[in-house]
Amino acid sequence: MLSFDHVTLAQRVLFGTGSAVDNAVRAVADLGAERILLIHGRSSRELADRLAARVTVVARIDDVVQHVPVERADAAVASARAADADLIVTIGGGSATGLGKAVALQTGAPIVAVPTTFAGSEATDVWGLTEAGRKTTGSDIRALPRVVVYDAALSAGLDGSFAIASGLNAVAHAVDAFWAPRVDPINRALGTEGLRALVPGLRGLASDPADLELRERTLYGAYLAAVAFSSAGSGLHHKICHTLGGAYGLPHAETHAIVLPYVTAFNQSAAPDAADRVRSVLGVDDAAAGLAALRAELGAPASLAAIGLREQDVAEAAALVLPAVPPSNPRSVALSDLVAIIRAAWRGDPVV
Amino acid sequence: MLSFDHVTLAQRVLFGTGSAVDNAVRAVADLGAERILLIHGRSSRELADRLAARVTVVARIDDVVQHVPVERADAAVASARAADADLIVTIGGGSATGLGKAVALQTGAPIVAVPTTFAGSEATDVWGLTEAGRKTTGSDIRALPRVVVYDAALSAGLDGSFAIASGLNAVAHAVDAFWAPRVDPINRALGTEGLRALVPGLRGLASDPADLELRERTLYGAYLAAVAFSSAGSGLHHKICHTLGGAYGLPHAETHAIVLPYVTAFNQSAAPDAADRVRSVLGVDDAAAGLAALRAELGAPASLAAIGLREQDVAEAAALVLPAVPPSNPRSVALSDLVAIIRAAWRGDPVV
Repeated sequence: MLSFDHVTLAQRVLFGTGSAVDNAVRAVADLGAERILLIHGRSSRELADRLAARVTVVARIDDVVQHVPVERADAAVASARAADADLIVTIGGGSATGLGKAVALQTGAPIVAVPTTFAGSEATDVWGLTEAGRKTTGSDIRALPRVVVYDAALSAGLDGSFAIASGLNAVAHAVDAFWAPRVDPINRALGTEGLRALVPGLRGLASDPADLELRERTLYGAYLAAVAFSSAGSGLHHKICHTLGGAYGLPHAETHAIVLPYVTAFNQSAAPDAADRVRSVLGVDDAAAGLAALRAELGAPASLAAIGLREQDVAEAAALVLPAVPPSNPRSVALSDLVAIIRAAWRGDPVV
Repeated sequence: MLSFDHVTLAQRVLFGTGSAVDNAVRAVADLGAERILLIHGRSSRELADRLAARVTVVARIDDVVQHVPVERADAAVASARAADADLIVTIGGGSATGLGKAVALQTGAPIVAVPTTFAGSEATDVWGLTEAGRKTTGSDIRALPRVVVYDAALSAGLDGSFAIASGLNAVAHAVDAFWAPRVDPINRALGTEGLRALVPGLRGLASDPADLELRERTLYGAYLAAVAFSSAGSGLHHKICHTLGGAYGLPHAETHAIVLPYVTAFNQSAAPDAADRVRSVLGVDDAAAGLAALRAELGAPASLAAIGLREQDVAEAAALVLPAVPPSNPRSVALSDLVAIIRAAWRGDPVV
């Protein structure tokens, strides 16, 4: 029998290639905002300048870093307060969106997010802060951007390998949602639809990284995957990756791309519906092996060793993850299981 | 290229067979409400009594009629105000939910909706009021129930033929959304997922009307179809059916079941994506003929004549619909087209 408690979060999405500035101006006007804190990564400076020419920016942060260090968040909150900002506009990937969320949490100002990657943070109410090498995450409705402005032309600025890693991170949102604590038929359907767009989009981008229709398809799929993730909550995969990112400074998207097949290999026998969905979209016989093959086909990094994790950190990482393992994970997880998963990902073992 | 402006509305859905009272009590508590206006249809009296034993009901309306006559709405608003209600709980089909929406519009009190049919009104911000034989509809965020409590055991109280008509009304939500003014990839995906649950659910219920798993599947599909409809807006089909319902008092669900194949026959050549989706879910070669066959297979009424429309009303009905035709309809619609559609539906002509 079917039983669930599903919460749909309110959000407006403006999607249009080449329309980021126009749509952001429209979003600002529709929210009635007049004093904007503009947050963007260095690579979004030109777009930020064009937006700043058309709306009133009272404070601007033009440099962001991964995992939202708490001192950066504090400084951004102080800027927003000093300038009496009534709206936060973020332009960038998960780092820019994440810093905007930290400000929104403290000030209550709404966010208009203009994502330039497939990170999906813009579609979730999940926030993260890193202090002393430990990342804390939580969810709060104030952290959910009120409006998202998607423009596939922006992601065209990503170099090919980062686009692929970012897209595989989006794949991980959908797959991890299938066994996450609040999985239900609605977020399962959204995640599946996200995968149906993401997988062919990414496969196409691997050979034709500048194709805008493929970028659109991937961006749209990444959005749905993030909505599914936001609704279903963090599963085992995200708990592992957030710990690795926060404690060892590993790059977010690549970490997801590498770890996902190993978590899937661990969970899939206990999560047949999830495995079916992944197999069906990938057109393969084994979900975990199919995800590993997709990662390889797209040329993403093959091991945590390749992106900087040291072998001696494997056991500590496993111990850090253990208390965060969702009790609802379809298969019970011992410390030794986590060591095995992280060690296999560290070595880049074949997934069979 | 992909371009859209999608608004997702916030809503909580509690789904559980046999749990309606428990989940409604939980929803009331989570909203912090203390003074409830309870609205229900006559057939929901027993459930309403059980709920009233567990929450504080300060006013109760135990009789509702279709299409929300304005004098009924005014009386309900007066009751809510006199009793200082801080929450509206509706139990019933579209008539109970619709009356609750009329009260919410005037008072601002939130709604917890407990639907007993597949009408889907609970998932939309669309309200309707009928005065002097003319139905006015609009959309307003205050009309969107904050929480929906679904319980498939409640719809088991529907007699078989009404369950079928109500389910076909849900099918019409999904199909009409495919060519509605704000159709986009997200609501298209939700509508398609809705059909994927509704069609097998209804086919199963036709032979086994008491099966609770089929009821659940149909109820879940009806919810997604209504979400898609709410997001995409009223298409040509709904403009025709609402006019017929408001002006001639035709039963809502049956009207939808009868009219949908004829509107689909008119639109499908100009809406190939919509036709593809319907064909694929039904497993047929022609979407309109497939919908007509589904209606026949399920034993729903075959003509507007059979549910009380008079032949002499056909031309007037067409004239009433004309100004409401969505300009974005994929095929332009002349008065003669509307006469032809409504006349064919009145006669129950074969759909080819």
